[in-house]
Amino acid sequence: MKAFAAVVTLEEALERYLAALWPQPRGEETVPLERALDRVCAADIRAAEDLPPFHRSTVDGYAVRSQDLLHASPRAPVALQLVGSVQMGEVPDLRVEPGQCARVPTGGVVPTGADAVVMQEHTQAEGQAVHVFRPVALGENVLHQGEDARRGEVVIRRGTRLRPQELGLLAGLGVVDVPCYLPPRVAVFSTGDELVPPDCQPRPGQVRDMNAYTLTAQVARLGGVPRFGGILPDQAAVVEAALRDAMRTADVVLASGGSSVGVLDVLGEVVPRLGQPGVVVHGVAIKPGKPTLLAVCDGKAVVGLPGHPASAMVVFDLLVRPVLEAMLGIRPDARGPRTVPANLVAPLTAPRDRDEFVRVRLRWQEDVLAAEPVLGKSGMITTMTRADGYVRVPTGTQLDAGTSVEVRLFD
Amino acid sequence: MKAFAAVVTLEEALERYLAALWPQPRGEETVPLERALDRVCAADIRAAEDLPPFHRSTVDGYAVRSQDLLHASPRAPVALQLVGSVQMGEVPDLRVEPGQCARVPTGGVVPTGADAVVMQEHTQAEGQAVHVFRPVALGENVLHQGEDARRGEVVIRRGTRLRPQELGLLAGLGVVDVPCYLPPRVAVFSTGDELVPPDCQPRPGQVRDMNAYTLTAQVARLGGVPRFGGILPDQAAVVEAALRDAMRTADVVLASGGSSVGVLDVLGEVVPRLGQPGVVVHGVAIKPGKPTLLAVCDGKAVVGLPGHPASAMVVFDLLVRPVLEAMLGIRPDARGPRTVPANLVAPLTAPRDRDEFVRVRLRWQEDVLAAEPVLGKSGMITTMTRADGYVRVPTGTQLDAGTSVEVRLFD
Repeated sequence: MKAFAAVVTLEEALERYLAALWPQPRGEETVPLERALDRVCAADIRAAEDLPPFHRSTVDGYAVRSQDLLHASPRAPVALQLVGSVQMGEVPDLRVEPGQCARVPTGGVVPTGADAVVMQEHTQAEGQAVHVFRPVALGENVLHQGEDARRGEVVIRRGTRLRPQELGLLAGLGVVDVPCYLPPRVAVFSTGDELVPPDCQPRPGQVRDMNAYTLTAQVARLGGVPRFGGILPDQAAVVEAALRDAMRTADVVLASGGSSVGVLDVLGEVVPRLGQPGVVVHGVAIKPGKPTLLAVCDGKAVVGLPGHPASAMVVFDLLVRPVLEAMLGIRPDARGPRTVPANLVAPLTAPRDRDEFVRVRLRWQEDVLAAEPVLGKSGMITTMTRADGYVRVPTGTQLDAGTSVEVRLFD
Repeated sequence: MKAFAAVVTLEEALERYLAALWPQPRGEETVPLERALDRVCAADIRAAEDLPPFHRSTVDGYAVRSQDLLHASPRAPVALQLVGSVQMGEVPDLRVEPGQCARVPTGGVVPTGADAVVMQEHTQAEGQAVHVFRPVALGENVLHQGEDARRGEVVIRRGTRLRPQELGLLAGLGVVDVPCYLPPRVAVFSTGDELVPPDCQPRPGQVRDMNAYTLTAQVARLGGVPRFGGILPDQAAVVEAALRDAMRTADVVLASGGSSVGVLDVLGEVVPRLGQPGVVVHGVAIKPGKPTLLAVCDGKAVVGLPGHPASAMVVFDLLVRPVLEAMLGIRPDARGPRTVPANLVAPLTAPRDRDEFVRVRLRWQEDVLAAEPVLGKSGMITTMTRADGYVRVPTGTQLDAGTSVEVRLFD
């Protein structure tokens, strides 16, 4: 029986795991617009009407026929006849004929006959005459009917995470009930006989559990629903029972610690018993994070992460985040730029057998971002608190100081 | 009486406003660690003990004295005497003498006498002898007591926004009650006779209010507590009553629309009556956003934003965000890089009298980020939904295609 697969590259690990798990949103729900921030849209949203629904003035001024003002200038202003005033929120009962104009406020309806609006600053009113000091282009200062969104047009694509501006667009189109994907439920466990909860005073040889907090917070930041299941001892029966129980209500089960190659390898023993097909990847050629375990158990994702807090966080970002994003329903091309260009300020060398992910701090230096490696062992959480993101150094490669690199920013 | 100040630059507007308002956190509270994500720490956090509290092994292997292995190699392995095994979570009752070693798991206590840990992969056990195939450096595979955080050291500075990694560090140090600043309360109003709520069908000449959603979401994303106060008609008495009422419970009052130079300039009329010193800035040399109004009324921030949704969002980011960040208590140097370098793919020209803020979409092109301007009038919310951030074009300047620019990413 081959319980463990061989160590594979990051790309191979992810490809195999996504193929075996095929992560999908678990369903949809309708969310009121005022609670839809950061949710992921579950349908293409089409404009049911034109936005704006009429030609709107974008300034305070006078609706005019641009032809009338072709030769207007400060020295030779053109006098137009004022035929009325547009009230906000109402359709004016007037028509602008050649030689005429109508007062229009910002956001007001541009009346029939007019094809542009001249700003108030470029005019002088004198009784029923308005003197205009400059020409306007056809359509100037007018937001045309349907210019923002045309009726029938897809304005927000399925799989878009809703930012403040998407909420505004939905409001403008009257979409107050938003179809959204249900977020994945993620159970988080910490394993290890040395761990105590943070509100306990560790006895000699014990340490406080950090991964419960980092991992649940990473899940929450992505938009998943985390639930911390507790600290588990290094006992196969206890771990198996806890994971089985969690799998009944969670879509993803994360357990940190215990996935290394030592005597504590409870997870490697337990996971194959939890369901089919079991372990997909055990061992990834990355530093930190080599002892990562990726399993699929009867349709659920079960992931063993390293126990070191910084390692667990980096592996979460590299391997769990893509799974959760797929479950969240985020369209791959809608995720925006996740990396930024920067210049390394110190050389970095990866080991001969693994890609290394080095935490860096970023700062502007002249007109480039400088990436300064944060030194320290991957067991140190402060390598994460002192960093803004991380850089990938390919296997066996030295990146010289000054090399242009892509920095993955922390969420 | 001088109700309106002259148009000023963005920097001057911000400087004057921050000086007049002097925004500060309104207080502090203790937040349980599990709810402290994204909150701002209100005190310097010192480590009450060393982290880790003892020398920990970072691998599964054998605790050794590095001197013993100076000449170890695959051809000439060094045999050490196994004197015991460290149990997780316990302090071993043993001492490693010259020529000896002890089994130690990842995270286990490195026993007295040992000064390094050799990985299991580089050894072969044979009864009570362990053959080691390579040397180890002094301290190798050991996370020393206090190496992550030293007792008494400030590990999180006041004014730090707490990310997942900071929560982990706090957990590791046993800080389960976190001193945090109280978030600012922000009342949001939309003004304009043409506005209807998004669940209403606009009559001809009316449009649905978008700013209620974009601005409250922007406040929420920053960590403020937004409350939408409703759509107000263009009537000074109604607006004044609503703003007065909001000022009783809000630290900041935002009103979009109505701050332009037209007949609808209710806000400019009302704000000076709300308290001292009143209007600080009315008119900023930026596009979009010229008609912005910044006021201080009896210690409260009152801000009039343009009615155009995209303009209101950009002005929020430029002028309201710094105010809220100060009220949130975020240390200016703790805000991380907020801009990224990119290359413009098309030329941009600002007007002669204002800096222009142009929305851009970012994509990787070879090893640089390319910034593609999103075209469209500032009345169009889709200029925001199609963008990842914006670029500043200084007054009267043309930026050629290929110019290296700083892009402010949307939050």
